[in-house]
Amino acid sequence: MRNFGIVIHGGAGNILRETLPPALESQYRRKLSEAVSAGYALLEQGGNSLDAVIASIMVLEDSPLFNAGKGAVLNAAGACELDASVMNGRTLEAGAVAGLHHIRNPIRLARDIMEKSAHVMMVGDGAEIFARGLGYEIVPNEYFQTAFRQRQLAEAKRLEQERAQGPRPTPAGSERVTFVTVDDNHFLRETIFGTVGAAALDGQGNLAAGTSTGGMTNKQFGRVGDSPIIGAGTYADNATAAVSCTGHGEYFIRAGVAHAVCSLMEYQGLTLGEAAATAIRKVNKLGGTGGLIAIDAKGNVALPFSTAGMYRGYRTARQSEVIEIFGNAR
Amino acid sequence: MRNFGIVIHGGAGNILRETLPPALESQYRRKLSEAVSAGYALLEQGGNSLDAVIASIMVLEDSPLFNAGKGAVLNAAGACELDASVMNGRTLEAGAVAGLHHIRNPIRLARDIMEKSAHVMMVGDGAEIFARGLGYEIVPNEYFQTAFRQRQLAEAKRLEQERAQGPRPTPAGSERVTFVTVDDNHFLRETIFGTVGAAALDGQGNLAAGTSTGGMTNKQFGRVGDSPIIGAGTYADNATAAVSCTGHGEYFIRAGVAHAVCSLMEYQGLTLGEAAATAIRKVNKLGGTGGLIAIDAKGNVALPFSTAGMYRGYRTARQSEVIEIFGNAR
Repeated sequence: MRNFGIVIHGGAGNILRETLPPALESQYRRKLSEAVSAGYALLEQGGNSLDAVIASIMVLEDSPLFNAGKGAVLNAAGACELDASVMNGRTLEAGAVAGLHHIRNPIRLARDIMEKSAHVMMVGDGAEIFARGLGYEIVPNEYFQTAFRQRQLAEAKRLEQERAQGPRPTPAGSERVTFVTVDDNHFLRETIFGTVGAAALDGQGNLAAGTSTGGMTNKQFGRVGDSPIIGAGTYADNATAAVSCTGHGEYFIRAGVAHAVCSLMEYQGLTLGEAAATAIRKVNKLGGTGGLIAIDAKGNVALPFSTAGMYRGYRTARQSEVIEIFGNAR
Repeated sequence: MRNFGIVIHGGAGNILRETLPPALESQYRRKLSEAVSAGYALLEQGGNSLDAVIASIMVLEDSPLFNAGKGAVLNAAGACELDASVMNGRTLEAGAVAGLHHIRNPIRLARDIMEKSAHVMMVGDGAEIFARGLGYEIVPNEYFQTAFRQRQLAEAKRLEQERAQGPRPTPAGSERVTFVTVDDNHFLRETIFGTVGAAALDGQGNLAAGTSTGGMTNKQFGRVGDSPIIGAGTYADNATAAVSCTGHGEYFIRAGVAHAVCSLMEYQGLTLGEAAATAIRKVNKLGGTGGLIAIDAKGNVALPFSTAGMYRGYRTARQSEVIEIFGNAR
C-alpha cells in the first residue's frame, strides 16, 4: 500500500512546559488531535490531499486557541486581519488571500481563488468582493476577536510605549522587532507565532499544503507576512514536498523558506529532514526564528523549529498519531 | 577592477518589429537607454547597487510608455493599482508594496518599507498610511491614468463580453487567461506584460534587484501578481544573483521564478545563464510566458524570455550599452 498522511502545526514560539497550564495544554492537545483526525479521516477514505489540508486547517481556524480565523491576534488598529494560502502539489496551482476582515475561513477562500479565479493572490476588499460573488457569508470582524487577544494587544501597546519613553537606548535594529508581546501573565508573555498550517500526502501520491494566520499582534494595518506568500509560507510540489511555515514572517519571506525546502531536495538531493532543517537554519542566520512542517512523496514528515516549542502533530498510514507541543524537534 | 553593471527590462510580450511603429520604437529605445544610464552613472561614481536599481526603475515608472507608475494599465474598475518590490542582496533585506493607488513611485515606498519599517510587505491603504507618515506626496489616481490605457481597458472589456456571449465554446481553461488585450490597433492587440525592473552589481560586489508594475489590464480589484512577491518577481542574494521578472505573474508565483534562479545556481551549480533559462522553461511548462533579467556577482547578465520580445537593456564596466526590444534572447 502507498503511504499517506498529514502533518499540521498550530504555531511556533516560546512555549514552555513550565508556563503552559496543564488544563490549557490539554485543550491544545485535543484540538490538534481533532485537526489531524479531520484531515486523516479524509485520506483514509481515499480523499485527496487538498481536501485533507483544508479540513485540518478549518478546525484550527475555528478554534480560538490559535492565531487564525476565530481568535486571531489584533493588529495595531484593533482589528483581525487574516491571510492564508494553499498549493496543489500535483498541478502547482496556488491560491492566496491577504488582509481579509470578514471571511470566516480564509483558507477556503484561498482555495476558491486557486480554483475559481484567473488569479493566484487577491488582497483586501477585492478579495472579499470576489468572495461575495461566490456566496460567502460575510461575518463581522467581531466574530474573530477574543478577550484574550484584546489583552494581548493592550500589553503590546503598553510595551511599545514603555520602549518609546524608556531612557535606555535599544540595541541597533531591535526596534524592528516589535512583535513580542509581554505581560506579567504566563501566557501573554510568550512570543508565539500562532499561524496554523497543514501538509498532506494522499494515496494517489499527490501533495498539498496550506497556511492560515492573523499575523502579528499590534502589526501595522496592511502588513503581510509569509503565510499568504507562495514560496515563503507555503509550497507544494509532487516532485519533492509539501511545506507550511510558522514564525517571524519577514525572515521567512526573505529566505523563501517553503520553496527553499523543495529546491534543496530537487537541486541538491537532500532528504526532507535535511532540507527542512537547512531552511530553518537559513532563517536563524538572518536573525529570525520559527518552524515548519513538511511531508514528502513517501510520507516522511519533518517538523523542525528553532523556538522553544511548536504546536504540532501528524499521522500517516504507517505511524499512529503523534501530538507534541514542547522542544526536541523531530 | 571589479566588474559592475546594471540590467533592466520594461516588460515582455508579443512585441513584433512588424507592428511597432519606428517612431514609437525610437521612444522606447531612448527611454530604456535613459534608465540604464541613470543606474549606471551611479555605479560608475561608486554608488551602491540598491540606489542604481531605484534610479533606473524610477525613470521607467515616470514614463507613460511602461506599465508601472505613470501609464500603468487600468484594472477592471478603471483605476491604476500598483505593486513593487526590492531586495538587497548583501543583507537579504526586502521590501514590497501592493495595491497602491496614490504613490507616484511605488519602488521608493518598497525601499522605505525595507529600510524604515519592521515589515517586508505592506498592502493597500495601510501601505499608503505608512507612506503619509514618511511625508510622501499623495497623488490622485488620475496622475497614473493615460488615454491609451483607457482604450486598452475598453478593448479588453469588449473582448471579455464578446467571449461571454460568443457561441463558440472556449477551450478548457482558456477563460482563466483573460489578460489579453485585443484591438484593431497594432498596439492594443499585443499581449504585453509591461512590468519594469532592474538588477545591479556595484563595485563593492553587492547585488540588488527591484520590480514595479501596474499588473494586468482589466484585472480584478485586489489581484496581486508576482511583481511584489519576494521570490517570485524579485530576488537578490550576493551569493548568486539579482533577478527581476516580467510575465504572466500567476505562473511566476507558482514557479517561484526569481528565487529558483538563485537556488539553481546555489544548489545545482548552474551558471547564471543556465539557471535563468531553466527558470523560464519552468514557467513555459506550466503554460505561462514571460521573461526575466538577472546579473550575477561577476557581472554576467542574462535576459531570457519566452515571448516574441522584451524591452531590455544593460551596461557593465566591461560591456558598452546594449538596448534591445525584439526576439533572439541573450
